Amino acid sequence: MVNEQSEQLDAVFHALADPTRRAMLRNLAREPHSVSDLAAPFAMSLVAASKHIRVLERAGLVRRQITGRTHICHLDARPMHGGLEWMRHYEQYWHRSLDDLETLLRAEDAAAQKPAGSDRK
Amino acid sequence: MVNEQSEQLDAVFHALADPTRRAMLRNLAREPHSVSDLAAPFAMSLVAASKHIRVLERAGLVRRQITGRTHICHLDARPMHGGLEWMRHYEQYWHRSLDDLETLLRAEDAAAQKPAGSDRK
Repeated sequence: MVNEQSEQLDAVFHALADPTRRAMLRNLAREPHSVSDLAAPFAMSLVAASKHIRVLERAGLVRRQITGRTHICHLDARPMHGGLEWMRHYEQYWHRSLDDLETLLRAEDAAAQKPAGSDRK
Repeated sequence: MVNEQSEQLDAVFHALADPTRRAMLRNLAREPHSVSDLAAPFAMSLVAASKHIRVLERAGLVRRQITGRTHICHLDARPMHGGLEWMRHYEQYWHRSLDDLETLLRAEDAAAQKPAGSDRK
């Protein structure tokens, strides 16, 4: 189960699971940024911002171009493709989820109407 | 920046950033499972599997129906919608990423052809 594609999905979803990193990607979608410009809008140290950038790099979502002392970060959105395809597969379940949940919620309502101290754990 | 929608995205992407949790969702997409049946295929303790299930519940991707002593887990794919929409926005950048990266890689090739000990850091 743990293969290269799976590890790539782990890294991409992990990278996207943070509001600072998502905001960095939004800013990079407008144009490439130096590391310090990319870090500037966030109320955190450059060290903390750099850690977020490294998480994005490990996921392949940011590429760093080094010219002399300047590090320019570029968005590479391609690794999102696998994540998008993975999630797209579940679109078919949204409506089924609704039917399924309706049944579930009705059962919960029925259970809630039982006297307190019944068989719920 | 940190609002309810953002926290929901954090929770969904975090839940998807693990191969065991993704496999659990795949199994739930086929049919609802009891907690022990959902945990069974994985080489881990029931406690460890339960932690993964709780991460999925916190993201709203799994709903638990409690009937007596039996806990039945149901897939609720709806919270993926926000994540899918977020990623879909970046599809437009895939081709731009390619052009941008071509320029970047050419620059890197040119830099690699410089003598060692040059101005890279």
